[in-house]
Amino acid sequence: MSAHCRPFGIGLLGLGTVGSAVAKLLLQEAERVTERCGRPIELVKILVKDREKVRDSWIPSDLLTTDLSGILNHPSVDLVVELVGGCDWALGAIEGALRAGKDVVTANKAVLAQHGTRIFQTARDSGTCLAFEGSVGGGIPIIGSLVRGLAANRIVAIQGILNGTSNYILSKMCEEGLDYQSALKSAQKLGYAEADPTLDVDGTDAAHKLMVLAQIAFKSFAGLETIPCRGIVQIDPLDIQYADELGYTIKLLAESWNTGQGLAMHVSPVLLRKSSPLAQVRGAYNAIRVVGDAVGDTLFYGLGAGGMPTASAVVGDIISLGISRGFALYQTSRLWRLDGMQVRRVPPGEISSRFYLRLQVSDRPGVMAGIAGVLAKHNISISSVIQNEIPDDQAGGSVQMVIMTHTATSGDFEKACLELGRLDYVAKAPVCYPIGEL
Amino acid sequence: MSAHCRPFGIGLLGLGTVGSAVAKLLLQEAERVTERCGRPIELVKILVKDREKVRDSWIPSDLLTTDLSGILNHPSVDLVVELVGGCDWALGAIEGALRAGKDVVTANKAVLAQHGTRIFQTARDSGTCLAFEGSVGGGIPIIGSLVRGLAANRIVAIQGILNGTSNYILSKMCEEGLDYQSALKSAQKLGYAEADPTLDVDGTDAAHKLMVLAQIAFKSFAGLETIPCRGIVQIDPLDIQYADELGYTIKLLAESWNTGQGLAMHVSPVLLRKSSPLAQVRGAYNAIRVVGDAVGDTLFYGLGAGGMPTASAVVGDIISLGISRGFALYQTSRLWRLDGMQVRRVPPGEISSRFYLRLQVSDRPGVMAGIAGVLAKHNISISSVIQNEIPDDQAGGSVQMVIMTHTATSGDFEKACLELGRLDYVAKAPVCYPIGEL
Repeated sequence: MSAHCRPFGIGLLGLGTVGSAVAKLLLQEAERVTERCGRPIELVKILVKDREKVRDSWIPSDLLTTDLSGILNHPSVDLVVELVGGCDWALGAIEGALRAGKDVVTANKAVLAQHGTRIFQTARDSGTCLAFEGSVGGGIPIIGSLVRGLAANRIVAIQGILNGTSNYILSKMCEEGLDYQSALKSAQKLGYAEADPTLDVDGTDAAHKLMVLAQIAFKSFAGLETIPCRGIVQIDPLDIQYADELGYTIKLLAESWNTGQGLAMHVSPVLLRKSSPLAQVRGAYNAIRVVGDAVGDTLFYGLGAGGMPTASAVVGDIISLGISRGFALYQTSRLWRLDGMQVRRVPPGEISSRFYLRLQVSDRPGVMAGIAGVLAKHNISISSVIQNEIPDDQAGGSVQMVIMTHTATSGDFEKACLELGRLDYVAKAPVCYPIGEL
Repeated sequence: MSAHCRPFGIGLLGLGTVGSAVAKLLLQEAERVTERCGRPIELVKILVKDREKVRDSWIPSDLLTTDLSGILNHPSVDLVVELVGGCDWALGAIEGALRAGKDVVTANKAVLAQHGTRIFQTARDSGTCLAFEGSVGGGIPIIGSLVRGLAANRIVAIQGILNGTSNYILSKMCEEGLDYQSALKSAQKLGYAEADPTLDVDGTDAAHKLMVLAQIAFKSFAGLETIPCRGIVQIDPLDIQYADELGYTIKLLAESWNTGQGLAMHVSPVLLRKSSPLAQVRGAYNAIRVVGDAVGDTLFYGLGAGGMPTASAVVGDIISLGISRGFALYQTSRLWRLDGMQVRRVPPGEISSRFYLRLQVSDRPGVMAGIAGVLAKHNISISSVIQNEIPDDQAGGSVQMVIMTHTATSGDFEKACLELGRLDYVAKAPVCYPIGEL
């Protein structure tokens, strides 16, 4: 164990919420971390943008630097931890570290989703390795569970609630009947949503995380532009209410599954039966359901964001690499490799599911027949219909009609919706969501 | 990677449900397993009791042997997989393998719970290592998550539904109103319970698994006899019904948590609020809630038993060891070590919680005052009482009184129950369960 006596030297890039929590664990829980790793872990340098703006007074000021290359070339730095986020700068810093012979730990899903192939090739060329547990699901050890614990399985499906901001907003809308704007404000007040929440609420962040999971589970190289992606901005409280009446909850899911014809992937609000485990994930929590051919159904649940939960994953990676690089080196050799077997994708329009459809229609004879006719024309059969009775004195106004369909392809369904939207007795664009039944 | 070209040789001990599923994955999914491990995994020999009784006709008969020492001394066997179960024979086989220089993978919680210290010392003396993901939670990667993914955390609490048989029976009792015997029969019919279900339903199996988890999370060496352990055999459908009225579900939990005064451990039916994630774990599923100081609340869910789910964990361990022994060797060096810091246990009588108490009492004046007096004498205050009104013409008979207490120590509570049981207007021994609020 003599090699273990030398401290394991860490260069930390970024001192935001997660960076600061990582520094706290490494500096203030040094004894614990040393015991877990079998040797001291030494925080050698921390890269910040502006030394004057650092508010963590418990950090020794001589650790702070604004010089990236000083960290990348520091002889005591074995491992570089990238927690700046974003894409371009992070790509350069990660590749710089790998080329300088340093292993890298990152929690940056955006850079992996967009540049994973390039980053992993650089690591292979340099004989270095990458760990990225913190990039998906915050503190939930989902990456380790996929590459190690579930390594014996052919993964059949992954369904994730991967964005805590969206789940918090949706939970508020469901439980308190708030509309989207009020729920967003509540999330911002509590720090669950940023001032500009776009990437969280439009589904991009969840799609990035799905791309990381799908690479591990399915070797998928899907580009962001090929993944149908709908966020939660358009969700109307009315649909949450109808879903509730029907026994469903609406959740923003990032899903990837093997259809038999190929791999399907999308990010979308989905109606889930209230009794399903994912439907019960509330607030800022994340959860990932993984179905494997040997293990069957599994679920991993925890806080998907925040300083300490994500730091738990990042420091877990640091400790693992401090103990042994063998496993991470092997994973680096096999992930994001273009020369491997490519998985066939199912074109988005060919993805099948049941659908929820809400139409605002004129209350007059022949409407139901007309709508049913359009659906039938596109091979969509109706499973159930809700149209609440309205008093006779309001007859002739407009009413909500909710239709649950049997299984159809999303291509057929979209065509039907377009046609329905053009009917003179349909008042607004049809509202539709897939029903989750994986 | 040249060392990786030699096949990784496996000697399998046992060809029961799990052993047969492991053989199936290694033989029939060889391509997948090779791809995941980076080199072929070769099933060299399988130890069986009686070659004539092997029904898996897809297994080449030259793999079968009844000679343990032939496997332990086989030059092509790198790793021995123990799936026979039980204690004495397994201890000898595991130690024999370790001493012969073979790494060991086991799913045997009983032998680890009872002989972990000895087994791990033998491994350290031999420079070999052990992996045991399959020993707790079937296919759920809970061991890997604790030693690796959550390594940065001080674990605060572990709460597990660790016995699928008990959970299946309890779910049946809750959902269909069956009594214990009928639910057990249904479980036996479906293969969820053995002909002799004692170790499952009396809590011993859950206690063994808790001992394994508590060693990893808290370095606890608690002996089985020091862990208060109640199973599900005595549970009356009446209490399930009252719990339901009060908003609770009864689950058999194995719990270990840091109270501040030391480590508390027990296995017991516990009342859980229906909205809590563990309350929603139904049927033969297992789930483990882990609370860490950095990560917060996490939950791991999946099938806790069965051939393929457990084989998923076992083959995951095999693949991991085939890739790199570094991490497992380090964990073997630090687990079940008597020379480390010992954790203080809270004496069972000092464990605090709220309690559910049901008494069958005579319907006459002064009864409530008498019971409240006994509880007060033992420092137990009442949070709520249910005593359903009975018709005047049935007055004077016996009625059920259900009391929910505020927090009390289990020592005080037991003394109060003893005293209550001796009152002349209390018809039967009081029924009591802790209320889970960790």
